[in-house]
Amino acid sequence: MLANGRPYLAIPGPSTMPDRVLAAMHRAAPNIYAGALPEMVETLWPDLRALAGTVAHVAIYIANGHGAWEAANANLFSRGDRALVLATGRFGHGWCESVQAMGVQADLLDFGKAAPVDLARFESALRADAGHKLKAVLVTHVDTASSVKNDIAAIRAVMDTVGHPALLAVDCIASMGCDAFHMDAWGVDVMVAASQKGLMVPPGLGFVWFSDKALLACANSDLRTPYWDWRPRANATEFWQYWAGTAPTHHLFGLRESLNMIAEEGRAAVWARHAALARSVWAAFDAWGAGNPDIALNVADPAHRGHSVTAARLGAPHATRLRGWLEEKAGVTLGIGLGMAAPDDPAYHGFLRVAHMGHVNAHMTLGVLATMQAGMVALGIPHGPGALDAAARVVAEAAGA
Amino acid sequence: MLANGRPYLAIPGPSTMPDRVLAAMHRAAPNIYAGALPEMVETLWPDLRALAGTVAHVAIYIANGHGAWEAANANLFSRGDRALVLATGRFGHGWCESVQAMGVQADLLDFGKAAPVDLARFESALRADAGHKLKAVLVTHVDTASSVKNDIAAIRAVMDTVGHPALLAVDCIASMGCDAFHMDAWGVDVMVAASQKGLMVPPGLGFVWFSDKALLACANSDLRTPYWDWRPRANATEFWQYWAGTAPTHHLFGLRESLNMIAEEGRAAVWARHAALARSVWAAFDAWGAGNPDIALNVADPAHRGHSVTAARLGAPHATRLRGWLEEKAGVTLGIGLGMAAPDDPAYHGFLRVAHMGHVNAHMTLGVLATMQAGMVALGIPHGPGALDAAARVVAEAAGA
Amino acid sequence: MLANGRPYLAIPGPSTMPDRVLAAMHRAAPNIYAGALPEMVETLWPDLRALAGTVAHVAIYIANGHGAWEAANANLFSRGDRALVLATGRFGHGWCESVQAMGVQADLLDFGKAAPVDLARFESALRADAGHKLKAVLVTHVDTASSVKNDIAAIRAVMDTVGHPALLAVDCIASMGCDAFHMDAWGVDVMVAASQKGLMVPPGLGFVWFSDKALLACANSDLRTPYWDWRPRANATEFWQYWAGTAPTHHLFGLRESLNMIAEEGRAAVWARHAALARSVWAAFDAWGAGNPDIALNVADPAHRGHSVTAARLGAPHATRLRGWLEEKAGVTLGIGLGMAAPDDPAYHGFLRVAHMGHVNAHMTLGVLATMQAGMVALGIPHGPGALDAAARVVAEAAGA
Amino acid sequence: MLANGRPYLAIPGPSTMPDRVLAAMHRAAPNIYAGALPEMVETLWPDLRALAGTVAHVAIYIANGHGAWEAANANLFSRGDRALVLATGRFGHGWCESVQAMGVQADLLDFGKAAPVDLARFESALRADAGHKLKAVLVTHVDTASSVKNDIAAIRAVMDTVGHPALLAVDCIASMGCDAFHMDAWGVDVMVAASQKGLMVPPGLGFVWFSDKALLACANSDLRTPYWDWRPRANATEFWQYWAGTAPTHHLFGLRESLNMIAEEGRAAVWARHAALARSVWAAFDAWGAGNPDIALNVADPAHRGHSVTAARLGAPHATRLRGWLEEKAGVTLGIGLGMAAPDDPAYHGFLRVAHMGHVNAHMTLGVLATMQAGMVALGIPHGPGALDAAARVVAEAAGA
Repeated sequence: MLANGRPYLAIPGPSTMPDRVLAAMHRAAPNIYAGALPEMVETLWPDLRALAGTVAHVAIYIANGHGAWEAANANLFSRGDRALVLATGRFGHGWCESVQAMGVQADLLDFGKAAPVDLARFESALRADAGHKLKAVLVTHVDTASSVKNDIAAIRAVMDTVGHPALLAVDCIASMGCDAFHMDAWGVDVMVAASQKGLMVPPGLGFVWFSDKALLACANSDLRTPYWDWRPRANATEFWQYWAGTAPTHHLFGLRESLNMIAEEGRAAVWARHAALARSVWAAFDAWGAGNPDIALNVADPAHRGHSVTAARLGAPHATRLRGWLEEKAGVTLGIGLGMAAPDDPAYHGFLRVAHMGHVNAHMTLGVLATMQAGMVALGIPHGPGALDAAARVVAEAAGA
Repeated sequence: MLANGRPYLAIPGPSTMPDRVLAAMHRAAPNIYAGALPEMVETLWPDLRALAGTVAHVAIYIANGHGAWEAANANLFSRGDRALVLATGRFGHGWCESVQAMGVQADLLDFGKAAPVDLARFESALRADAGHKLKAVLVTHVDTASSVKNDIAAIRAVMDTVGHPALLAVDCIASMGCDAFHMDAWGVDVMVAASQKGLMVPPGLGFVWFSDKALLACANSDLRTPYWDWRPRANATEFWQYWAGTAPTHHLFGLRESLNMIAEEGRAAVWARHAALARSVWAAFDAWGAGNPDIALNVADPAHRGHSVTAARLGAPHATRLRGWLEEKAGVTLGIGLGMAAPDDPAYHGFLRVAHMGHVNAHMTLGVLATMQAGMVALGIPHGPGALDAAARVVAEAAGA
Repeated sequence: MLANGRPYLAIPGPSTMPDRVLAAMHRAAPNIYAGALPEMVETLWPDLRALAGTVAHVAIYIANGHGAWEAANANLFSRGDRALVLATGRFGHGWCESVQAMGVQADLLDFGKAAPVDLARFESALRADAGHKLKAVLVTHVDTASSVKNDIAAIRAVMDTVGHPALLAVDCIASMGCDAFHMDAWGVDVMVAASQKGLMVPPGLGFVWFSDKALLACANSDLRTPYWDWRPRANATEFWQYWAGTAPTHHLFGLRESLNMIAEEGRAAVWARHAALARSVWAAFDAWGAGNPDIALNVADPAHRGHSVTAARLGAPHATRLRGWLEEKAGVTLGIGLGMAAPDDPAYHGFLRVAHMGHVNAHMTLGVLATMQAGMVALGIPHGPGALDAAARVVAEAAGA
Repeated sequence: MLANGRPYLAIPGPSTMPDRVLAAMHRAAPNIYAGALPEMVETLWPDLRALAGTVAHVAIYIANGHGAWEAANANLFSRGDRALVLATGRFGHGWCESVQAMGVQADLLDFGKAAPVDLARFESALRADAGHKLKAVLVTHVDTASSVKNDIAAIRAVMDTVGHPALLAVDCIASMGCDAFHMDAWGVDVMVAASQKGLMVPPGLGFVWFSDKALLACANSDLRTPYWDWRPRANATEFWQYWAGTAPTHHLFGLRESLNMIAEEGRAAVWARHAALARSVWAAFDAWGAGNPDIALNVADPAHRGHSVTAARLGAPHATRLRGWLEEKAGVTLGIGLGMAAPDDPAYHGFLRVAHMGHVNAHMTLGVLATMQAGMVALGIPHGPGALDAAARVVAEAAGA
């Protein structure tokens, strides 16, 4: 048993909670009418905007990512509205199911589990909507399940080229605070995120950023309910309206601290850190997979891989066995493969995900790779040589002297 | 400045968070697929049922109390359904506004700000609905704003007498874990609560208990959305379905600890503690108010007062001045008077609330009363004698030798 | 059982630990060679000096108060040296025993358990030492057991009047951060304190402040050992020398926070707060004791009472019964009477102590008094009327409008 | 900057504090006269004995390791007594200096910085003391500075062979809870340890275990002072005597939790974990050093290496540069080389230490090695290939399938 130290959670959310965040949440309940809490909350808005690269509005919900989807849906749509959902993994399908279940006619364009949005296909779909019935296009920036990353700016460019007036709504739950994102520069109208991944706060907060254009276009959405209504949340006249009731006091202090950490490091540096650590993981998989067709990254083109999580194949049942070994023997918990095969399908046990999101550094990530290799050795899983050297080299090059 | 010790928050929610709860929440993020978290969660359901006195279903939401209202509404109703809301304070009105905004035709019976539901008036209203259009009756057990407590069993009895088939839905946000409540014995179909008052967990969890009868009667409610749908939350086949997504990991560990504390003390003992402390507060106000008509409890009849919070008058602007003095000089934060007068009405400054909910004992409560009296002396607020002796006497009698 | 809220510890040390201090100690282990810890430690010294009112040296020990005594002893004396110990309570005797056990010939002047040093008697003793054999005079500022406070400036004045060259060493364990203290202005050469009372940090740090005069006079003390040697601790050239080994990392961060709190409030304000709260406790006892000879403060003259702890009589076995009742029924733990009677003497059960030291405010202190009165009522302990009103009045007058 | 995740401290003490230990210490101050604290403390003694493999007495001191040395010294010796100190690193010298400074005539046998006690030389020294003047032999089990481990059983065997009656006192500060230790089976009379290494508790507790034989032999030691006296600490009649004053409340709760963790894992499993992780570190250094004479482990023979810390050479100034890089770029803090060269000697920058003590697992240790290699690559430090593969292989073999 070589697991009895600090357990390391490398699942794609919740991510490792920084001590600073947990400490900020370990506090007496505050007054929710005046004083430290309301004063602090006013400092959150500019930082949340800066994080997303926008001057847009932002609403915080006591909710998880699914709740944030629903919040976006409820404000975007009226019953019977039409939407186009671009799916590049399980969570693209999930958002589609969510919006459909609320009474929206959503068309799904499915790009599979390992590739980004095919822009030509998307363009065709848009052009087919000559009557501009589509109220919004919904797309996932990085799909937590497949780790596919979409080029949001290119998607917007297609919409502009076609001249389609639909709103562009993006799910950044798995990418916010990890991958570069420029809401305004990329022409995004609505964006959703959640607290527990790149934002390094326990699950419990969902976020929706929305532009003036979206606010206006959605003025009459009839799916809106008091809890999801983004208007008072973004422009409260009384403190409780930010939260449609009691504020999520402790999470807000945690969020303040995580935003402090991001600000101290700098958004660009945070993104560069994630990019480098992602490359180190990819380098290891490339080496393990050389000559071992069972082992491969899920997304072939590095340009289409998210920087916060890496989905991979390891050959069934190796992935499941390795995950078990790591948890029991090395103190590391990897993510399951999600949406790649049904849990009762033997193929299910050939997928796994390595998260590298949020509060993550070279020590944590290289430690995961090294223990993975130890596990492959122990379990007799065939793998190519040189993975750890390659991963360390990526770190060396990224960090510099 | 005699405030520089442990600040004491006596607002009616969030309440004082026990060290045990905060400690339980100060932990690394857990795996959300297997292990300690899912195993622990299975222990919550029976305890939540026992707490409410029911064998019903229970759904936990990442939400505040307003979200719990909306969850209940979304499951109870279809657009255009009719409801009857019995309001005995600001939060009765709030629930009515919430359900109306979702498209339900809700009739409001307003019983004012200082009295419980008038059963005769309620009976008339029920009888007037000869066609049984009312899908549900919504009522607040204890209104956080007015501190009025309603006799839920009597309300059910009226419904039974009339033979009206409407569901009975009760808001126990301010009373759960404080005042006696017997969901099944009292014939309650749907009950909502939240984490931050008697349950002693930071804001962030809402709860809806619902009976088989409610489940069946609401099978086709079309306001239901994936996030609010109580069916998978109460009967999940996969762990994530309990939460419609990512679990509120840290709050759940906090909730586990608060339920442990309640179980260790015993539900009846918890209620008796709240009853005794409430009586000590009432005794003090009765004494202060003797000969001082400005000072009075909001609810005349002790039988109709909630045990978790006490709304009172102190004469404007005395209430506001006293609250300010207590915070600055004594380390105590009282609740504002809510819903009694508009904040820009001078009368607003004549109301306040003293909370005594959740993790509260004789030391905390008597300390509040004693500092209140100190503040009245310091500020020259006329008040009758003997309040502290009377409050101490109530404690003595309740505690015994 | 009205105890199930926040327990309140009113024993004379350890005192209530502020959340800020506990949070500061809840952290990963730091590097002990460079970085945040050594940088922070440099900020402690000026604050510790300012706290004591001195430009003297200060040594921090990983030790409790008894260790701090021993540290002072080991630096002050060589074997066979002579000392004069002025005892006004159990801890005066304790320091005497400590120094005697180390091989010092200490003469004890015992002033009983309820009165301060009799200056005339002290003067006589000094004059009797015509040969100036006494190396140091040891005295307790406030004795934790008796709550007697000595007038240190007056004691120094006697020494000056007599022209005796002995060093003046003062035990401020129970008073530092509670009662006014001016080391340099009062002519104190050596002063000892500990972390767990007015300094609001868990037990584990002892402190010795010492003047240049003491440093010089004690240059050849042969009781000195490497661990107790105050020279490197006060003037380290390498970081580890401050601690004669590994630094008490977590306590130091706690201490930093407690010193921040004291600095934010201001030393004079801290003292005034303690004085006012002490007077409120005295007022209650005076009222309870009126017509009840069993109930009385231990020290008759308010000028000779410490402001951090109040020793009192309640009549045996009432004190012990009341302490038990408070712990079980009200969530309050009072201190036992220490050194007043042997534990197996029935009289032992007539004494108790109420602490009001460190992180303490009006709410906490008045809450203690109110629950004490509730307990007296419940247990049928006769007591005079008006105690709580009197205590509240003291607070009102001290706090002002 | 790839450092911005959880910082990892790999210095040889303080070690990584487990969340469980920090959580146990984050608590309100307890009563020190009755209740939870005294009851809990009674459970510590059997566990501390079991940890050391003894039925001996054990005393807990509020102190660091140097304080524990002094405690042992003060009980073992009278002024002028003679001792033999066997030094195999800086801390052996340190203990010798400590005991000499207290007035003991200690002879130092210095075995250098990279080798264990030479048993023949030791035997000669013992035999030279035909008059049995040596009261005790002092030796370090694992020297924190050199990482040399001594064979304590063999040292005792020499003493038995010679028939020398000296007591055998062992410093296990760096090994307790890491390397196998059997106090009684190995014939150890006195053993000292501290909290902040294998015991995973912040610095602040020192421990001395001592046998009945030692108790008897040291009955008249005149260096003993009240604070260091081990008799009441090991056999207190009143709770405060365990601590010669106020108990180190928070550390004790932390210690309870760390002992729980050790008991849950099992002492033998803890040792096996440390052994395996140490071997993985050694394997990496062996590979890096192949063909690079600058890189080498400090102790040639694995049998003489401690399992909690590894001292190594990396060539000046590479060691210092690498340490800096790791801290800045990878979030890892390694230990400095201690006692190998003076800080102002250029050679100083060729030494470092990697700690792997206490709360440490495969992820943490392999992560350190991988980031070290990344740093060597980034800084252009020549090193042999295959180190990470070798280290992972050790882990694989130790953990099994």
